[in-house]
Amino acid sequence: MAVTNGSTDYGKNVVDGLVNEAKLEAKSVAKLSPDHDHVLKCFRLLIADLCQQFGGGHPGGAIGMAAIGISLWKYVMRYAPHTPDFFNRDRFVLSNGHTCLFQYTFNHLVGYKAMTFDQLKSYHSDREDMLCPGHPEIEHEGIEVTTGPLGQGVANAVGLAMATKNLAATYNKPGYDVVSNHTWCMVGDACLQEGVGLEAISLAGHLKLNNLTVIYDNNQITCDGSVDLTNSEDVNAKMRACGWDVIDIEDGCFDIEGIVQALEKSKKSTDKPTFINVRTIIGIGSAVAGTAVAHGAAFGKDDVANMKKIYGYNPEEHFVITDTVRAFFAECPSRGEKYVQEWNALVDKYSEAHPELANEFKARVKGELPANWKDLIPKEFPQKPTASRASSGLVFNPIAQSINNFMVGTADLSPSVNMIWKGKEDFQHPERKTACGINGTYAGRYIHYGVREHAMCAISNGLAAFAPNTIIPVTSSFFMFYLYAAPAVRMGSLQHLQVIHAATHDSIGMGEDGPTHQPIELPALYRAMPNLLYIRPGDSEEAAGAWIAAIEAKNTSSIISTSRHAIPQLKQTRRDGVAKGAYVLEEVEGDADVTLIGVGAELSFALDVAAALKEESGIKARVVSFPCQRLFERQDSQYKRETLKRHTGVPAVVIEPYAAFGWERYADAAICMKTFGKSLPGKHAYEYFGFGKKTMTTKVTDYLKRLKEDEFLKSEFVEL
Amino acid sequence: MAVTNGSTDYGKNVVDGLVNEAKLEAKSVAKLSPDHDHVLKCFRLLIADLCQQFGGGHPGGAIGMAAIGISLWKYVMRYAPHTPDFFNRDRFVLSNGHTCLFQYTFNHLVGYKAMTFDQLKSYHSDREDMLCPGHPEIEHEGIEVTTGPLGQGVANAVGLAMATKNLAATYNKPGYDVVSNHTWCMVGDACLQEGVGLEAISLAGHLKLNNLTVIYDNNQITCDGSVDLTNSEDVNAKMRACGWDVIDIEDGCFDIEGIVQALEKSKKSTDKPTFINVRTIIGIGSAVAGTAVAHGAAFGKDDVANMKKIYGYNPEEHFVITDTVRAFFAECPSRGEKYVQEWNALVDKYSEAHPELANEFKARVKGELPANWKDLIPKEFPQKPTASRASSGLVFNPIAQSINNFMVGTADLSPSVNMIWKGKEDFQHPERKTACGINGTYAGRYIHYGVREHAMCAISNGLAAFAPNTIIPVTSSFFMFYLYAAPAVRMGSLQHLQVIHAATHDSIGMGEDGPTHQPIELPALYRAMPNLLYIRPGDSEEAAGAWIAAIEAKNTSSIISTSRHAIPQLKQTRRDGVAKGAYVLEEVEGDADVTLIGVGAELSFALDVAAALKEESGIKARVVSFPCQRLFERQDSQYKRETLKRHTGVPAVVIEPYAAFGWERYADAAICMKTFGKSLPGKHAYEYFGFGKKTMTTKVTDYLKRLKEDEFLKSEFVEL
Repeated sequence: MAVTNGSTDYGKNVVDGLVNEAKLEAKSVAKLSPDHDHVLKCFRLLIADLCQQFGGGHPGGAIGMAAIGISLWKYVMRYAPHTPDFFNRDRFVLSNGHTCLFQYTFNHLVGYKAMTFDQLKSYHSDREDMLCPGHPEIEHEGIEVTTGPLGQGVANAVGLAMATKNLAATYNKPGYDVVSNHTWCMVGDACLQEGVGLEAISLAGHLKLNNLTVIYDNNQITCDGSVDLTNSEDVNAKMRACGWDVIDIEDGCFDIEGIVQALEKSKKSTDKPTFINVRTIIGIGSAVAGTAVAHGAAFGKDDVANMKKIYGYNPEEHFVITDTVRAFFAECPSRGEKYVQEWNALVDKYSEAHPELANEFKARVKGELPANWKDLIPKEFPQKPTASRASSGLVFNPIAQSINNFMVGTADLSPSVNMIWKGKEDFQHPERKTACGINGTYAGRYIHYGVREHAMCAISNGLAAFAPNTIIPVTSSFFMFYLYAAPAVRMGSLQHLQVIHAATHDSIGMGEDGPTHQPIELPALYRAMPNLLYIRPGDSEEAAGAWIAAIEAKNTSSIISTSRHAIPQLKQTRRDGVAKGAYVLEEVEGDADVTLIGVGAELSFALDVAAALKEESGIKARVVSFPCQRLFERQDSQYKRETLKRHTGVPAVVIEPYAAFGWERYADAAICMKTFGKSLPGKHAYEYFGFGKKTMTTKVTDYLKRLKEDEFLKSEFVEL
Repeated sequence: MAVTNGSTDYGKNVVDGLVNEAKLEAKSVAKLSPDHDHVLKCFRLLIADLCQQFGGGHPGGAIGMAAIGISLWKYVMRYAPHTPDFFNRDRFVLSNGHTCLFQYTFNHLVGYKAMTFDQLKSYHSDREDMLCPGHPEIEHEGIEVTTGPLGQGVANAVGLAMATKNLAATYNKPGYDVVSNHTWCMVGDACLQEGVGLEAISLAGHLKLNNLTVIYDNNQITCDGSVDLTNSEDVNAKMRACGWDVIDIEDGCFDIEGIVQALEKSKKSTDKPTFINVRTIIGIGSAVAGTAVAHGAAFGKDDVANMKKIYGYNPEEHFVITDTVRAFFAECPSRGEKYVQEWNALVDKYSEAHPELANEFKARVKGELPANWKDLIPKEFPQKPTASRASSGLVFNPIAQSINNFMVGTADLSPSVNMIWKGKEDFQHPERKTACGINGTYAGRYIHYGVREHAMCAISNGLAAFAPNTIIPVTSSFFMFYLYAAPAVRMGSLQHLQVIHAATHDSIGMGEDGPTHQPIELPALYRAMPNLLYIRPGDSEEAAGAWIAAIEAKNTSSIISTSRHAIPQLKQTRRDGVAKGAYVLEEVEGDADVTLIGVGAELSFALDVAAALKEESGIKARVVSFPCQRLFERQDSQYKRETLKRHTGVPAVVIEPYAAFGWERYADAAICMKTFGKSLPGKHAYEYFGFGKKTMTTKVTDYLKRLKEDEFLKSEFVEL
């Protein structure tokens, strides 16, 4: 990084008022080496060309961050382009995912094989096998997590850094730092405004994650204009208040040397995470530099041509990557392979020195669970009424206790969620001693997330993304508060991450806390969400089935949704029935009059109503337990028909105190909720909303009668 | 507030490690007056009794905050218990809503008529007309907003304070401060951890809302234990960095004088909002004081009896409110009526001095819109293809321009959402001059929320809750990001607040931004959500219908969901059709073979497929436009049958690139999405997922054929 002559061509068109005190040009003259000058120009033109070709995209951020990218990929980050899944690689998260061209272009330049020049040029194209989608996607080489929804990436990065801390504390031995990687996260102004980012930042400071560096592309521009339309806080002071070290870089568009020093310093820092506040100019070099126009639109043909002229490039040539640029990054693949070989050698020696630990470690690296994990689940359960949240604990806590893959967290509801196992240790900084008497260790696998549901789930995505199934994160809260976390639950499902959400207090049965806490419409979201299992077990046996399904779903997120209150344990339930999504709980002899669909905490209601119907009016009601719609959808047509029997003309009535929405696929009528709930003790809430046995029995009886009277009713879904 | 002898009985059982430097006892001796001592004791015992009676609830917080409550209700807040809706009253928000007994009890003591002693004692009971639900509810006297989901209240309070600023800037004249109230907000540790709270805090600092005071019940306890399990930030420094004034109160359990001084100071402060950091001890006086046990459970009979003994009360007596306590608060109703009379007199004089402005003001107070508001909507629209987000602007911007009731905000997507009207002014502090050239005024009605979707919607709930329909807040963002905001959208619907959400970039048609930005399952949430209209207009004419429906829905929130891309303008669409939720767009002569349901941005697909079916195979397809399921559900059975005709055996196929979930009620088959989306240009995304005209036509043809071959198929919902 020689400090010699540099260019003064940049930034001429920058809107003065936005540059603040950075005085970029003067500084850049002093510091920029010819190589860096060349690479910066070439990179920036390439971005301008790629967006111009598409006629859109997000050029400004990628161009503004070029010097940061060179610092990371050329000088600081430890990664292996030819072994993208190298276990101990540094993790890089582009939280401002709309600047994806930044990452795609560096991934191309440093030699990720899949990211060919052709692929790079396919940015925003209609090519179906494109590796350059509008936001980075985890499926592709060199991408650690899918980003785009702002703020998620910061929280993912916190999770990735926590994964390193936990694995290192669990497996490293003196002389054998088999897990020692660093996590780097780029953020824009927006990620620091989004609540999920702020939650994660606060927790990262508390946890003293000194293996995490957040790099702030401080260009003071968002879509609407200058950031001071919406934000005038002292971000450095805020980060320090949250327990972070802060380093300032004034000339972020050019000061590669300064950025590299800051990045290196952050790796060797105190016991805090580091926030590097890098002043940049969005779209520097373009006529719209420093303005919101540079954010989300191509610069226009003339502007791009003019940039090229000023930079000494031929305006007629496009997508130029010079030999100098190629040579500059040429060492990256071989350097990466050296890291891989060194680590492999280290693990070999470690295996000799600590054979047992190394065996477990290697299984973790492969994402394997001990073969006998299912045996840890009780074969039988106490038959007394049990809250299904308690059932969840009975099923899962022995697994969590024995198997290090599981990291279990809660958004401040430990007393409610029953996810504490015997001997659990809290994940905390090793020097932490809390007022309530907890001593910390990073080897702990129980995570107090605080009242931060959204960050909990986004951080869990980061834990899961560290390496496939190496860590299986479990989150826990009230089901209603998974609405706070929904964007993160969605991102887990989208990324095929195995994250298990243990949600208690479902349905109106949770009672007194009232309508703000009683989920009504939320199940519709999660039943409709692709690649997510929303499972409502009806007793302990079904809870076993729910956890088995979730743990076997290696590429799918799950929500296990349980009751606050005690529910009866049923003789007919089967854990292998849960695996099929729905199954016949009680069949009738001869032709049935109706099928009752029971679900989760209210499964026993269906049995009760069936018995009452028989007793009161001789109506023959079959009962189907229906814990998971998505699992049922995976069954073949024959199984589905045999289970529901609607094709034989038997009407089906679902009983569930949620919105009926979505049950229309499986039922002809619903005893469901039509409004928000009400603050009443659970039993009274059931009664109040028509879920008393007598009321339900009458409703079904009347419905069957109406069906006979109105020939058209069969073609309509009826809410009873 | 005489400073004489006080009690030293309190806090004996406090866990020492949690009290920190507060040294409560020593200080309380010096400051507590006999009256205050008496009221504090009586109040605390009453809370303990109420929870003990129920055997649960949240006693600790309410008991810890007693001195704060006395300071507010007795000394500082301007309100009128006998005229609860007094327009210029101070607004109080209990963001830590689980401590609701705090508010219920003070509301009883200060004389809100509905909150009788009997009602107070019904806390957590099964009484269906109960006014003491598990969390405060807006429907009840003296409650400004429903709280419970943590962090929401802080954002609501920011909205309430913004409402005051806007109304004051619009209507106050020298000597006539007709709007001058203050907003007070209690928060616990959790509200300061939740992202939505942090977003709102940052914006409030930026906006310099010096009419807002947040009072932090700093008891350092949450459900899991001490706050330092999850949080070790310097909260005062963080608040200062966000642009807030900070005042510390060390002895928050007793120092009523200090609290009153701090509250008063915050009203006369600089140009910043104020954060009062009040150290308290949760459940002070109980054996479990200062611990998490005091948070969410009754103290137990013995503990309550012991508290009474120590305080000099009879352990056998329950729910004691002494004459001293009654006398202490006796002045509150008459004092309140004086405020009301003074304000009425002021408004009368104002009406004489500024008759025109006063007329508008008085209409706003009543929540009235100008009678002619509907005439502002164009009667006709350009017939060229138009993005429905642009249609939204064509319809609504003339209304926003002319009618001051509307305050329109965006989460940093001004260039995308088309909600800017001619001459719009930004809501900003009057001295704000932004780098991008905006001069501020609190009279501005366009709000830059920053990239804070959740706070945007929660703040909008506050704007709407100021007084019914006085302000009608409009929010705007990409539809997908209303998942971030979902908890606030829900709270708006639950509270019957008229908030209109203008959501653009719906469905996969939004294109390149890819699966992170393409909503698939989100409509299921909002279609299932009670008291919310989710409306997808199919062209400009339907956009007119959508806005009319939303503006007429005085007690309901709405989402108007529009396209990024240009869509055809259809001859058959009708704005009054939207009002019915669904209507026949194209009928066939004679018996139809199929009904095609078209929706929103893809409505024209249904027409195209109908034409192709006719041309290719003579299949007669009716077309129904279905912009809003909830509005359709409100129609009578006859209208519904005539529209859909399923009772006549005509199968219905819905076309919509969302999850099919929920359409089962209206259709027999779906051309919908089965997975997340993909980053492709919109047109190609449609093709890729089977929404090409030819593919869809074939799917419908094949389905009709299969229906004839498989007699059971009619009983099943089929995804084509």
